[in-house]
Amino acid sequence: MDLHGKSLIGFTEAAAGETRFKALNPATGEALPGEFVKATEEQIARAVDLACSAAAVLRGVSGKNRGAMLRGVADSIEASGEEIVQRAHRESALTLDRLRGELTRTTNQLRMFASVCEEGSWVNARIDTLQPDRKPLPRPDLRSMLRPVGPVVVFGASNFPLAFSVAGGDTASAWAAGNPVLVKAHPAHPGTSELVGRAITEALLKSGAPDGTFSLLFDDGVAVGRSLVKHPAVRAVGFTGSQRAGRALMDLAAERPEPIPVFAEMSSTNPVFVLPEALRERGGVIAASLVTSFTLGVGQFCTKPGLVFVENGLQGDSFVGKVGDSASKLITSTLLTSGIAAAYHSGLEKRRAEIRLLAGGAAAEGCGANAAVFETDRNALSEELVEELFGPAVLIVRCSGLEEMLDFACKMPGQLTATLHGTEADLRDASPLVEVLQGKVGRVIFNGFPTGVEVSHAMVHGGTYPATSDPRFTSVGTLAIDRFARPVCFQSFPDEGLPGELKDANPLNILRLVDGKSTRERIAR
Amino acid sequence: MDLHGKSLIGFTEAAAGETRFKALNPATGEALPGEFVKATEEQIARAVDLACSAAAVLRGVSGKNRGAMLRGVADSIEASGEEIVQRAHRESALTLDRLRGELTRTTNQLRMFASVCEEGSWVNARIDTLQPDRKPLPRPDLRSMLRPVGPVVVFGASNFPLAFSVAGGDTASAWAAGNPVLVKAHPAHPGTSELVGRAITEALLKSGAPDGTFSLLFDDGVAVGRSLVKHPAVRAVGFTGSQRAGRALMDLAAERPEPIPVFAEMSSTNPVFVLPEALRERGGVIAASLVTSFTLGVGQFCTKPGLVFVENGLQGDSFVGKVGDSASKLITSTLLTSGIAAAYHSGLEKRRAEIRLLAGGAAAEGCGANAAVFETDRNALSEELVEELFGPAVLIVRCSGLEEMLDFACKMPGQLTATLHGTEADLRDASPLVEVLQGKVGRVIFNGFPTGVEVSHAMVHGGTYPATSDPRFTSVGTLAIDRFARPVCFQSFPDEGLPGELKDANPLNILRLVDGKSTRERIAR
Repeated sequence: MDLHGKSLIGFTEAAAGETRFKALNPATGEALPGEFVKATEEQIARAVDLACSAAAVLRGVSGKNRGAMLRGVADSIEASGEEIVQRAHRESALTLDRLRGELTRTTNQLRMFASVCEEGSWVNARIDTLQPDRKPLPRPDLRSMLRPVGPVVVFGASNFPLAFSVAGGDTASAWAAGNPVLVKAHPAHPGTSELVGRAITEALLKSGAPDGTFSLLFDDGVAVGRSLVKHPAVRAVGFTGSQRAGRALMDLAAERPEPIPVFAEMSSTNPVFVLPEALRERGGVIAASLVTSFTLGVGQFCTKPGLVFVENGLQGDSFVGKVGDSASKLITSTLLTSGIAAAYHSGLEKRRAEIRLLAGGAAAEGCGANAAVFETDRNALSEELVEELFGPAVLIVRCSGLEEMLDFACKMPGQLTATLHGTEADLRDASPLVEVLQGKVGRVIFNGFPTGVEVSHAMVHGGTYPATSDPRFTSVGTLAIDRFARPVCFQSFPDEGLPGELKDANPLNILRLVDGKSTRERIAR
Repeated sequence: MDLHGKSLIGFTEAAAGETRFKALNPATGEALPGEFVKATEEQIARAVDLACSAAAVLRGVSGKNRGAMLRGVADSIEASGEEIVQRAHRESALTLDRLRGELTRTTNQLRMFASVCEEGSWVNARIDTLQPDRKPLPRPDLRSMLRPVGPVVVFGASNFPLAFSVAGGDTASAWAAGNPVLVKAHPAHPGTSELVGRAITEALLKSGAPDGTFSLLFDDGVAVGRSLVKHPAVRAVGFTGSQRAGRALMDLAAERPEPIPVFAEMSSTNPVFVLPEALRERGGVIAASLVTSFTLGVGQFCTKPGLVFVENGLQGDSFVGKVGDSASKLITSTLLTSGIAAAYHSGLEKRRAEIRLLAGGAAAEGCGANAAVFETDRNALSEELVEELFGPAVLIVRCSGLEEMLDFACKMPGQLTATLHGTEADLRDASPLVEVLQGKVGRVIFNGFPTGVEVSHAMVHGGTYPATSDPRFTSVGTLAIDRFARPVCFQSFPDEGLPGELKDANPLNILRLVDGKSTRERIAR
C-alpha cells in the first residue's frame, strides 16, 4: 500500500499542510518511503468537532454494538497484519517475531475490551430502590452507572508501535467506554500509524460508526499534541512515554480553564530484590533470566528491571559475575530512534564516570546499543542512578541485606513494578519489604520478571508518581476502561426513561448492586 | 465541656501557638466562648509524621476492625450529640432540628462506611489464575485489589458543620479505605470541630487505633491548609467549598513535585427545567416546592436549585407569580458567616442592576438574609448570572420552550445536578435534553428537587468541572471510598504471602472477579 502521509480527520484524509517529515530506519539511518504532513490547527479543530458529534452518537450505542466495532477493528488490523509488521520493523528495528507477537497482543486486547463492553457489567450499575415509608423522609429511587467522558486524546508510544500506539490499550479502552479517540501518531513510526489508522477507518466505516470516532494526526514536534490537550472539548488524555513529556502534559492539562485528567505512564526502574536463600539456591538461574529480561526489546520496556539488589559476599559476587558474563556475550542491537540512542549513550557515559562498569557498554554506531552491566554499593546509589536509563542497561546494587533493601524501598520514587526472588522463607522474612513496596508500585512480582505485562482482569500497570500520573488507575488490563468513564445518577426516573443497564427488567442481564447486594435479578416496583 | 481551642496532633493536644481566633455567632455577631489557636508549622509536620506511621499500621488492619473503629466514632459523636448540636447552632445559626438531622446523617454515614469495609467486597478483588500451558507463554497467577493511598487531608465545609466537616463523608470514606486523616477545621465552627474531634479521639483511643489516625488543625486563614496540601507525605485532598478556594487547592496540588489528586466539590447552580405539560397540570405545586427547596438551609446547599427554566406565556407567568408570592412571605433568616452574607448581598445588588427582582431581596442587618426571586429571559442570561449565588436566591429564566432549554444545557458549565419536572410525555420529548445533561452533571432528577442528597450506594454527588475537580468520582455515597484507594497487583505470590482478600480460600467471603466471573467461590490451585 502506498503511504499518503496525511492525517485522518475522521473518515477524511486531510488536505495537505506545509510541514512534512519522513520516517528513518534506525538500523540504517536511511529515510523510508512516505512523506508525512504535520496536521494544521484547522485540521485539529475539525477533528475535535467531529469527535464531539461522534461522542453524542456513541453515548447511545449499545455495548454489543461497541463490541462489534472493536472486533471489526481487530479483524481489519489482522487483515493488513503482515504489511503493518513489515513497516513497523523498518521504522523501529524491532524484530519481526516481536512485532508479530505485538500485533496479536493488540488485536487480542481489542477483542478483550469488546468482551468487556458486550458483557456490560463494567458500568458498575447501582440501584437503590424507592422506600416510600422511610422516616423522616422517603428514600427516592436512585440508579447510577458509568457513562463515557467524551473525546479522548491518545499519544502513540515509541516503544510499542502497535500495542501502545494507534490501536493500543488507551484507544481500545477509551472506545470500549464509548468515547471517540484522537490519536497523535508517534513520529518514529508514522507509516505504521498510517497503515493501522487506515485499517481502523475501513473497519469503522463498515460497522457504521459515526464520523469522528477516530482521527489520526501527524506531527514530528509537540505543537499538535499541545493543541489537542488544550482543546476545551477534549475530556481526557492517555500517554505512554518519558517523564519529562508526561509531566509537561500533566501541567498543560492542569492549567486549562477546565482541568482534565492525564493518564501518563512514564518512567520506572523496576527494582528487583534477590533474597538470600534464593541467591544461594538458584542465583545462576536468576542471573541468566535477568539478562534475558533487561535486554528484551533492547531494554526498551517500561517494565525493564533496571536496578537489582544483591547481598554482599561470595554468592552475590558469583551472581554479579554471571550477569556480567552473559551480558558481555550479547551482540549489538538497534535502539528505536537516534534520540533514544543518544540518551542511552550519554547515560552510559555518566554512569561510567561515577560507578563501576562491570561488562558490556561498548560504543556503537548510529542507533546501535550494547548491553551494559553496572555495579555499585547501596551507599553510592545517588538519586540520579535510580532514574530510568532506557535501553539494555542494568545496575546491580550490592547491599548488606534485607535492612538496606527495605531502607531503599522506603526512599525510592514510585515504580510500575517491584520484584522479589526468594524462597517462601525469604518471602516471610521480607514481609515488611513487601508491605512498603505495595505502597509505591502497581505490581509486586514473586519469582518472575516484570517484563511481559499480561493483558487481563487483574493486571495493574500503574504505580505512584513518577511511574504514572495517577496511581488510582492502570493502563493495561480491563480495569483501564475506568479511566474514561464517570458515574451518573438518575433519580426517580420512570423505567422508560432509563438506560437499558438500569431498567427494572435488567434486559442486558448485567450484574448490578441492588440495595447493596450484587445480583442479576430484575427489580420489582 | 470547656473548649481548650487547641489543635489535636494525633492523640495529643497541641502546645499553644501564637495566633488565636474566636468563633462568632452569626445571629448576634457576638464572639462565642473558646479561643482557638492556629496550628504551627511544627505541629503540622508532627501531625503528618504521625499520619505516616499510622498509615503503615492501618494498611494492615482488617476491614472488620476498621468497621468497628468507624462505629466507635459514630457512637462517641452520638454520646456528645446534644452538646455538639447546641454549639453548632450557635456557630452556624442553622436550626437545632436541621443540625440534629445532620448529626444523624453523619453517624449513619460513618456506620454505612463501616458496613462497606466490614463486608469487604469494595476492594474489587480480581484473580486471574495460573495457566501453565498457555501458548506462546504461560499466564502467571495475577491477583489485584484496592489498597489505601496514605495520609488524606480533609477541609471542613462551612455549610455542613457535621456531615461535610470533621467527621463527615470525606473523613469517613478515607478511613474506611484504610487511610489516616488530617482535618483542617473550618474557622466558622471551630468549637463544633473541637467537640467532634475530641469525641473522635476518645473513640479511636478506645478502639486501639494508632496515634495519627486522626489530627485536627485550626487556622482562620489559609496557611495551614496550604502547608498540609504541599506536604510531600500527603497523598490526597478532600474539599467542599467555593470554586475559588477549590481551584486554588487543585493548582497547588498540581504544582507539587509529586502531584496529588484533589477531590473538590465546588459550585453549582443546579438548573431546573419545568416542562410544558407538568407546568399546565401542576405548576402551582412545583412552584411551592421550589420555594421550599431553594430556601432550605437558607439556600446554603451545594444542590440549591438556583436557575429555573419556565416557558413564556400565561402558565409560566402564573408559575413565576406563585414563586414570587410565596418567597415574599418568608421571614428573614441568618446566613452562616459575615463573609457569606456580604457575598450574598453584593450578588443581589449586581443582579438587581441587571435584571428584574420579582420578589423579596430586602436588605437585612448583619448576617440576615431575605429570599429573593429574580426573573430574566434566556437571551439576557449572561455567564455571570449562571454562576452560583450562595444563599436563598433563585433566578427564573423564561424561554420559548424545549429548544432553548436544550441550547442552554449544551452551553452551561458542569453542575452537580439537573432537574426536570414533567409528565412521562414531557420526558419523552425532552430526551435530547436528558442526554446532554447526563454529559455534564452527576445526578439527573425527575419530578423532585436536588436538595436532600441521599447517602447510599447509587448516589453520585459529582459532575463535571467546575461543579467538582474530577467528574469520575462522587463525594457522597459508598462509591466515595474509591477516591482514596488504588489498585495493587500481586504476581505469582504463594497463598501465605497474599492479603486475606486474595487468598485461595476466600476467608473473608467477599465477591471477587475470578477469571472474569464474579464469584465468592474459593480458588483451587
